[in-house]
Amino acid sequence: MLTATKEIEVRYAETDQMGVVYHANYLIWMEIGRTSLIETMGFKYSDMEDEGVLAPVMDIIISYKSPVKYGDKVTVHTWMEHYDGLRTHYAYNIVLEDGTLAASGLSKHVCVKKESFRPVSVKKYFPAWHEACEKHKKQPEMQGSK
Amino acid sequence: MLTATKEIEVRYAETDQMGVVYHANYLIWMEIGRTSLIETMGFKYSDMEDEGVLAPVMDIIISYKSPVKYGDKVTVHTWMEHYDGLRTHYAYNIVLEDGTLAASGLSKHVCVKKESFRPVSVKKYFPAWHEACEKHKKQPEMQGSK
Amino acid sequence: MLTATKEIEVRYAETDQMGVVYHANYLIWMEIGRTSLIETMGFKYSDMEDEGVLAPVMDIIISYKSPVKYGDKVTVHTWMEHYDGLRTHYAYNIVLEDGTLAASGLSKHVCVKKESFRPVSVKKYFPAWHEACEKHKKQPEMQGSK
Amino acid sequence: MLTATKEIEVRYAETDQMGVVYHANYLIWMEIGRTSLIETMGFKYSDMEDEGVLAPVMDIIISYKSPVKYGDKVTVHTWMEHYDGLRTHYAYNIVLEDGTLAASGLSKHVCVKKESFRPVSVKKYFPAWHEACEKHKKQPEMQGSK
Repeated sequence: MLTATKEIEVRYAETDQMGVVYHANYLIWMEIGRTSLIETMGFKYSDMEDEGVLAPVMDIIISYKSPVKYGDKVTVHTWMEHYDGLRTHYAYNIVLEDGTLAASGLSKHVCVKKESFRPVSVKKYFPAWHEACEKHKKQPEMQGSK
Repeated sequence: MLTATKEIEVRYAETDQMGVVYHANYLIWMEIGRTSLIETMGFKYSDMEDEGVLAPVMDIIISYKSPVKYGDKVTVHTWMEHYDGLRTHYAYNIVLEDGTLAASGLSKHVCVKKESFRPVSVKKYFPAWHEACEKHKKQPEMQGSK
Repeated sequence: MLTATKEIEVRYAETDQMGVVYHANYLIWMEIGRTSLIETMGFKYSDMEDEGVLAPVMDIIISYKSPVKYGDKVTVHTWMEHYDGLRTHYAYNIVLEDGTLAASGLSKHVCVKKESFRPVSVKKYFPAWHEACEKHKKQPEMQGSK
Repeated sequence: MLTATKEIEVRYAETDQMGVVYHANYLIWMEIGRTSLIETMGFKYSDMEDEGVLAPVMDIIISYKSPVKYGDKVTVHTWMEHYDGLRTHYAYNIVLEDGTLAASGLSKHVCVKKESFRPVSVKKYFPAWHEACEKHKKQPEMQGSK
């Protein structure tokens, strides 16, 4: 399993009057982490869009563990939790500099055509991408291995 | 169970190059829905903050069902799915004008002190708020009712 | 001269750790005001985009006069300060409920083709829009009028 | 005159349906550039806030020259255009990788007390900061120098 690490400096604009980062901004960091993983695998998300295919978010699950403040740097650790040729699930840990887990999340995606928002087969449209996903995704653990 | 309805006009700034509303913005709409429910129950979230108590988001779950576009109006339906004196869970349906479900979500909150981020008892700090939550939250369904 | 008024409820997400609305968000409010003026004049900006014409911002000038807080409602007053068939300048006053001026701004726009970002003549592409702009823009004051 | 350079990778969330970066986001980049300049001068803006002093934006002027797209990297060049002990003006050039000027801007600030939003003398509160500003700001050109 391949894990990408991406450091992000917290922006002032990302805080709210609670004095910490506004919770919706973590989804933007998750996307930055996802982009980073894709690049680590040798691809660019913008190339996919240029070919008329989008990978919109279907579901998001996120747990906020520890607040993040202005002046902090966080590292987003991203890996492919699941890939089956149609659906891609990315998992994320957002970690503070001292190692504290700030948040953990999951996003589920399906590739669709830009014009129609209809699902497309990654295997058919992007065979090289399909290969890379199969290789780098979280592998099922062997049962009975010793 | 009390459900608040709040209409939101989609902002141009909320779209992205996919041509639809960027997914993180739905969390902002959920917050607007939550604020609306609290007002419908006769309270103001800003009053709570003025007394030094915050209600940060602990968890978010959201499913995106149908894209929302600039020019659309959505209605956020919000209700209190769960309340136990400490934790409050809000549920949301974001609905397009033609009745299509755009997204459904859930957010989990705990009240904390502004200075320490330590949990506080809603029942103790805000007895009137506690009463209202008990009254308006989703009630458990009766077993054996005919 | 036609002036549109649009009320906006401040969103929690719009605040920052300074405890007031983050300054970049006023530009979003200005856009909402602009959209409102266009609607008051009988048009929809999204219709223009559907025909392949965009009206990107060329310049922004904004002066922040008084901070805006969560819980506030502001009213954006928008009018067309200048229109010459090619360039459109909108002016804005953002006003608090007690009448205090929170900010005043100006935005300058040119219509361009979506594909090429090349300027287009409003008069040629949108004659009805041209007529309305000529009618509703700020008129030069008469000299020597008594 | 000291100029800070800060590279920024464009975020997907920063685009809008026009297919380019939404114009309000440039103000966030200007703030990142400003923070970078302050760090280059040996200070941290968050330290100033910790001491109860804020530096809110009074005025913004920005000219958009060339659109920025997702996948681009921009560099923000920031310098102190003016400083007189009370007011600080920062100037910005946002430049694309091929050297194209994407935007140029100016922001005007006054230091204020966090509690009252009343102006404070930088010279009195932050003498070291005052010294640095005097040293690194854009110096007036000599008249009659040969």
